[in-house]
Amino acid sequence: MAGRHRRGGTVRRTIDWDGGAVMIIDQCALPASFETLRLTTVDELIGAIRRLAVRGAPALGAAGALGTALSAFRHPGDAEAVRADARRLADARPTAVNLSWGVRRALTRLAEGPEAVLAEAKALMDEDERVNREASRRAAELLLDRCPSRPLRLLTHCNAGRLATVGWGTALGVVWHLHEAGRLEYVFADETRPLLQGARLTAWELAEAGVPYRLLPDSAAASAMARGLVDCVVVGADRIAANGDVANKIGTYGLALAAARHGLPFVVVAPMSTVDKELPDGGGIVIEERDAGEVTCVAGQRVAPPGATAYNPAFDVTPAELITAVVTEHGIFPPA
Amino acid sequence: MAGRHRRGGTVRRTIDWDGGAVMIIDQCALPASFETLRLTTVDELIGAIRRLAVRGAPALGAAGALGTALSAFRHPGDAEAVRADARRLADARPTAVNLSWGVRRALTRLAEGPEAVLAEAKALMDEDERVNREASRRAAELLLDRCPSRPLRLLTHCNAGRLATVGWGTALGVVWHLHEAGRLEYVFADETRPLLQGARLTAWELAEAGVPYRLLPDSAAASAMARGLVDCVVVGADRIAANGDVANKIGTYGLALAAARHGLPFVVVAPMSTVDKELPDGGGIVIEERDAGEVTCVAGQRVAPPGATAYNPAFDVTPAELITAVVTEHGIFPPA
Repeated sequence: MAGRHRRGGTVRRTIDWDGGAVMIIDQCALPASFETLRLTTVDELIGAIRRLAVRGAPALGAAGALGTALSAFRHPGDAEAVRADARRLADARPTAVNLSWGVRRALTRLAEGPEAVLAEAKALMDEDERVNREASRRAAELLLDRCPSRPLRLLTHCNAGRLATVGWGTALGVVWHLHEAGRLEYVFADETRPLLQGARLTAWELAEAGVPYRLLPDSAAASAMARGLVDCVVVGADRIAANGDVANKIGTYGLALAAARHGLPFVVVAPMSTVDKELPDGGGIVIEERDAGEVTCVAGQRVAPPGATAYNPAFDVTPAELITAVVTEHGIFPPA
Repeated sequence: MAGRHRRGGTVRRTIDWDGGAVMIIDQCALPASFETLRLTTVDELIGAIRRLAVRGAPALGAAGALGTALSAFRHPGDAEAVRADARRLADARPTAVNLSWGVRRALTRLAEGPEAVLAEAKALMDEDERVNREASRRAAELLLDRCPSRPLRLLTHCNAGRLATVGWGTALGVVWHLHEAGRLEYVFADETRPLLQGARLTAWELAEAGVPYRLLPDSAAASAMARGLVDCVVVGADRIAANGDVANKIGTYGLALAAARHGLPFVVVAPMSTVDKELPDGGGIVIEERDAGEVTCVAGQRVAPPGATAYNPAFDVTPAELITAVVTEHGIFPPA
């Protein structure tokens, strides 16, 4: 049974290893309450992944690796059992490629025993903050080059911050760099229906960091651009195809269309682990369809008539031609 | 004090005159409960308009006219008092031009006494269903001409149905015509944040009429178009400028951008009373900004951190170049 603890904001990582268990910040409880969950089995971790208590492509990479370590300690010497757990973990959600990447990477050291698997997971987590800092630093420089004249007014979608990664963040990493440099005016944060990751998580991170921000309905983003209130759009990614097509939270594609209409830079920030080189383009990306109840009920209250069904894809695909740049820790992808 | 009554769906009109009072279907109570409100003063009516218990440009035209009649009976022979009430009514919400149009039209007969003002309001209401039937019939024909090969899959935004008018509806009027003719496959209904008029009102109307439909987050509409699930987009309007620019519920502009990208017809259906011939283009349309609480709280529950502010315009402006046709009871506007 998962242990639940309330603590202040001193927990440094979104997901971490904690003496034989996986510890996560429970993102379903935010912003009302900051709580951590201690997950001691692979099934508990899969449940947390499915209900988005831990989410965000880079954080899911860590979850895949740590879950594999959890299984390796649970089944020492039984590689078949660990590989079966690993397959279930990798399939917990279909779109973010980082999840199976984290699993595969941890499995490379399975033959050396559980401590080696854990060491690989810890190395992956240590890298995460470093590569995200570097990718978002490069993206911040690109934006300052494009819009040199004034403190920037960024628009972002969903949550691509510390909570979507082990630490620091991708799109919000750009915000932290610009804020530190005194080059940020404010952030427009799309609320991000249906699960409101923008209102619940991004707003919480921005408030904690003292960054000026305003929430907006997702459908108001094009209006904000038309009124000249936005200088650039910055988002994360869940899977990037070899040609630079990007799967990201539902609504990203519409934002890219509006940014193109208004000549605004549309920048994707992600670690290289989000690139799926096996996929030639975005047409092959499996899009997760989630339960209609996420749309027909809001904050636990039914808002639609009985019997209402819903179209509820978790992601959409933005074609590379609409994207100014996909920025990773190695620079712009695909390289020119 | 407004009287509240629960009844079945037998009330024919969204707004009507009821023996010295204005009777409305309370749209804040739907879909959980079908209730009518009996409003006996102009202030009660203004309150109902502001909290969107009655909304939709054509229905607001009737509200303006009926409210003026209410005042005329309250202040017989005191034209100044009636004109003061009329000004407050016309200013209750700024964007829909029909509200002030309804007020002005009722005032034209003020000198003849309250019964004449009421007769004018009733004439306006009788016209409403007729002109909306005609406008939506013309729009349905236009769509069948454009997409003759299969039963249509329509996408709509907000609520432009019976509940947005005295009766019948504008964009949903097209749905009723196509459904009657056996030429409709299904309707995609955008939920329409922040106030969820799509989930609460459009879904209720479609369910009552037995029309197949699916709800979707506003941000998923572009994805549905990209997947080939939508044949055309049909919306109502709150104000139409002389050049054909259209103010409508926030999110309409982004839908028009996505429809243009995918080569889908984007059709606006509205009575001529929604056209503001004084305005050369959409740049002059006053856009209502509503309270941040509509975004930071959902279904009565706070979803954002304390202190969160919001950008919450109720409408946006879609330029005429993105609109296939604005269809009124007289045909396409502006006439070629």
